[in-house]
Amino acid sequence: MSLPEVTIHLPEWVAQTVDFERAYAGDQEKMRLAIELSRQNVVRGTGGPFGAAVFERGSGRLVSVGVNSVVRLNNCTLHGEMVAFMLAQARLGSFSLRSADGTEHELVTSCEPCAMCLGATLWSGVTRLVCGAHRDDARRLNFEEGPVFPQSHPYLEERGIEIVHGVLREEANAVLELYRARKGTIYNG
Amino acid sequence: MSLPEVTIHLPEWVAQTVDFERAYAGDQEKMRLAIELSRQNVVRGTGGPFGAAVFERGSGRLVSVGVNSVVRLNNCTLHGEMVAFMLAQARLGSFSLRSADGTEHELVTSCEPCAMCLGATLWSGVTRLVCGAHRDDARRLNFEEGPVFPQSHPYLEERGIEIVHGVLREEANAVLELYRARKGTIYNG
Repeated sequence: MSLPEVTIHLPEWVAQTVDFERAYAGDQEKMRLAIELSRQNVVRGTGGPFGAAVFERGSGRLVSVGVNSVVRLNNCTLHGEMVAFMLAQARLGSFSLRSADGTEHELVTSCEPCAMCLGATLWSGVTRLVCGAHRDDARRLNFEEGPVFPQSHPYLEERGIEIVHGVLREEANAVLELYRARKGTIYNG
Repeated sequence: MSLPEVTIHLPEWVAQTVDFERAYAGDQEKMRLAIELSRQNVVRGTGGPFGAAVFERGSGRLVSVGVNSVVRLNNCTLHGEMVAFMLAQARLGSFSLRSADGTEHELVTSCEPCAMCLGATLWSGVTRLVCGAHRDDARRLNFEEGPVFPQSHPYLEERGIEIVHGVLREEANAVLELYRARKGTIYNG
C-alpha cells in the first residue's frame, strides 16, 4: 500500500492578516500579532483561541506564525506553538532555530505553553519564550495544560531559554473569553 | 505571498517493513514492531533510534507507525511518537483516538517518551502507553528527555492512561547502542 502522509497548512485568512516581510519591535508589538492570530482563529471559526509566532531576535524579523489547528486538521499535536515551530524550521531548512552563525530566535505565544509545547520549545532551539495569557486563564475554560509542574519553567531557563510572562495578558485573555462566549469546542484528549 | 506548508511522510522503506493489514497480539509482538522500526531507521540512515506504533486495543489492529524524523524532515517536533499520533489521527479522521463508539487505542514506543511526547500522549486520546527502553537508556546517549518529573507519569495515569514500562527493554536498548556505535547525530535543541 502507499504510505500515508500529513500536510500541515495555515488557514487561508492568514495570508491577509500577516505581513511576513515586516520586522516587529518589542514584546508588545510581537504579542499583538500573536493575539490577533488567536482572535482571528476564533472569529473565522478555524480553531481554538491560540496564536503564536517565531521571530529572529535582534532584527525582529517575522519567521513564521501558527494558530491552533487541532480540530481543523484532525491532529492533536497542532497547537499554535507547534505549527509555528514546524513552519519556522521548514522556512530555515533546519531542525533547530539556534543557527550555527549565532542567529537566535524567540517564540511569542498568546498563552503559556502546555506540557507538549514546553517540551517542543526546548527542542526547537529558541532562546526566548514570551507568553501572553497565564495558564490559569486557559484552565478557566477547561483547556488543560497537561503535566506542567513548578520545576518545568526553571528546567528550560537552566538550559538557556529566557521566559517572559504576562505580556498583554488582559488582551490575550479577552480572546479566551470570546471563545468561551461563542461556545467553542474544548478538545482535550 | 503564498502560505507555507509542511508535509510529514514516512521513509520509503516503511512500506516494505510494515504490514498495515495485520493484527498484533500482546505487548511483546507490538513492541517488536516498534523496535524493528527504530532499528531500520538507524540502519537505513533515516533518523534517530526511535520507533512507535498505534494499535486499536482489543483487536490489535495496527493503525499507524512513526519513526524519528527530526533530521530527515528538518522538524524538531517529529519524534517517532508524534509521527505515529499524527498519522493515526489522519487515518481515523479524528483529533482524538478515544472514539465516540468506545474504541480505544494504545501507543507502543521503543523508548519512554520525552516531555513533548508525554504531553501529546495525553492529548492524543490513547488509553494505554507501552514503553521499551528506559529514559535513562536514552540519556546515556545524551538524548535529553526534557522537563519530565516524578509526577509526570502519575499525572497521565490519574487521567486514565495505563503505562507499561520495560517491554523488551534490552532489545530496544540494543538499537540505542547501535546508533551510538554508528556515531549517529544527537540533535537536541
